[in-house]
Amino acid sequence: MDIEWDAINHVTKVDPAKPLPADLAILRETDLIMVGGSDDVTAENTQQAVTSIREAVPSIPIVQEPYDSSHVSSETIDAVDRVAVPAVFNGDRDHFVAKHLDFFTEICRKPKAVTGASLPVVGEVIATKGREAVREVASVIMAEGYVIQNLDSKAATLTGVERTLSVEEVAGAALATEMFYNFPIFYIEYSGTYGGTEDVTAAEPYLEETVLLYGGGIRSREQTEQILAAGADAIVVGDCFHDDPDRFVRTIPG
Amino acid sequence: MDIEWDAINHVTKVDPAKPLPADLAILRETDLIMVGGSDDVTAENTQQAVTSIREAVPSIPIVQEPYDSSHVSSETIDAVDRVAVPAVFNGDRDHFVAKHLDFFTEICRKPKAVTGASLPVVGEVIATKGREAVREVASVIMAEGYVIQNLDSKAATLTGVERTLSVEEVAGAALATEMFYNFPIFYIEYSGTYGGTEDVTAAEPYLEETVLLYGGGIRSREQTEQILAAGADAIVVGDCFHDDPDRFVRTIPG
Repeated sequence: MDIEWDAINHVTKVDPAKPLPADLAILRETDLIMVGGSDDVTAENTQQAVTSIREAVPSIPIVQEPYDSSHVSSETIDAVDRVAVPAVFNGDRDHFVAKHLDFFTEICRKPKAVTGASLPVVGEVIATKGREAVREVASVIMAEGYVIQNLDSKAATLTGVERTLSVEEVAGAALATEMFYNFPIFYIEYSGTYGGTEDVTAAEPYLEETVLLYGGGIRSREQTEQILAAGADAIVVGDCFHDDPDRFVRTIPG
Repeated sequence: MDIEWDAINHVTKVDPAKPLPADLAILRETDLIMVGGSDDVTAENTQQAVTSIREAVPSIPIVQEPYDSSHVSSETIDAVDRVAVPAVFNGDRDHFVAKHLDFFTEICRKPKAVTGASLPVVGEVIATKGREAVREVASVIMAEGYVIQNLDSKAATLTGVERTLSVEEVAGAALATEMFYNFPIFYIEYSGTYGGTEDVTAAEPYLEETVLLYGGGIRSREQTEQILAAGADAIVVGDCFHDDPDRFVRTIPG
C-alpha cells in the first residue's frame, strides 16, 4: 500500500527481537508501524513480527527499518510496504554512504537472491529481467536523513555519532535533505530522552516535500501535541510500546 | 537557462585559475561548460572566467563546480546557470556529507551574505523572506554522485579516496544515485587517464532519470564516441582545453 503521509502523525517503532504486547489491538490508533532494531534482530524475527502485526491491524502501513542488510530478505521485502534506510548526518562514513553503497551493490549483484524471482536463463533476457528486478527491489527502499541528538544512546554508538548537531546545523541538514539529497524523510532522533521542540522548529521551515519525524522520550499526549504543534509531521514512539502499553496508548494524539 | 541534458554530449571543464585559450570560439561546439578547480581558485577568478566565457558563447549553459564553499559568492551564483556539488562515493566523510552539511548550514545562517538580497527588517517578514531566499539559493545547487577511479590524481588526494571501486560497486553506486540519493548526475572520473568503457557499461543500465557523465583522458573523437556508445550521456574534457586547444576541438563528436 502507498504511504499517505498527510494522514500520519503517530508512528510506532517495534523491535522484532523484543516480545510484542499481548494485545496488539493497541496499535489500532497509530498511523504507521516501523519494524527494526539492532541486537538479536534477524530477517526471520522481523518477518514474524510483521506477520503478527499485519494480522492484528491489516490496514496500517508497515515499514521495515533495517540496521543491517542481513535483516532484509525477499520475504521481509514482500511482507512490508516499504524499507526505510537511515543516512545519519552526524554519523560516521559507514552510516551515510558506505553501507548504502554495499547494500545497492549487493542488490545489483544478486537480484535473484534478494528478489526471490526465478529469472529465465536466456542471454539478454536474463540481463533485462535482472535489471527490472533490481529496480523493483530498489524502488521499495526509501532514505531517511537522520540526526541523532542523544550521545548516550545505543543508536549514537552504533552509527559512530561523536557529537550532536547545533540547532543551526539541524536546519542545514533539513535543507540539504530536502534540496540536495532529496530524501523523503528527515528524522530527528533523541532516542529515549525527550528533546523538546527546538530542533523541530529549526528544521520545519526548510521542509516542503520532505516529511519531518521526531522520535525520543515521548510518554504523554501533551508531548506528542507539543512536537506536532512545532511542525513535525509525526512523532515516533518506541520504548513504551514494548514496556508500558497503557502509557503507549496515552501518546496517541486526540 | 534550463539545462537540456538530452542535447548535451560534450562538456568542457574550465579551471578558472589557469589562463583561458586566446580564442574562446573553440567553445562553440561544446554543449555545457563546467567551471571549477582547487589550486588558486577563488570566487573572483571564477566570476571572471564565467564572464569571459559568457561573452564568447552566450547560448551555452555554464555550471560552477566549486571545490570549496569559499569559491561561491552571490556574484558567482548570479553568473552561472547552476552550481554542481560533488558527493564522492569512494571519498572520505567530508566529501560525501560533512562539507555539504556545512555548506547548507551556512546558507541557512546567512541568506543575505549568500544571496546578496537586502531583506526588510520587520519581524516575521524577514524570516519569511529569509526562507524564500534560502530556498532560492538552494534550488540552484545540484548534487553529482562521483566515483574517482584514478588514485594518483589530485582529485583523489583532495577528496580522501583510498581505493577505486570495482565494476560491481560502480553499478551499485549508480543504482544508489538514481534510487536512494536521487542525485541528477552520476559522474565517473578517471581524471587525466583514459578509463575505457567498462564502468560506463556497468552503470548505464541502472540510470534512467540520472545523467551519466564520464571524464578522464579523452584526447580524440574516437574515444568520445566509444564512451558515448557505451551509454554515457556526455563526456567531459578538461586538460586539453587549456593545454592543447587544437586537440580539444578534435574531442568534439561529429
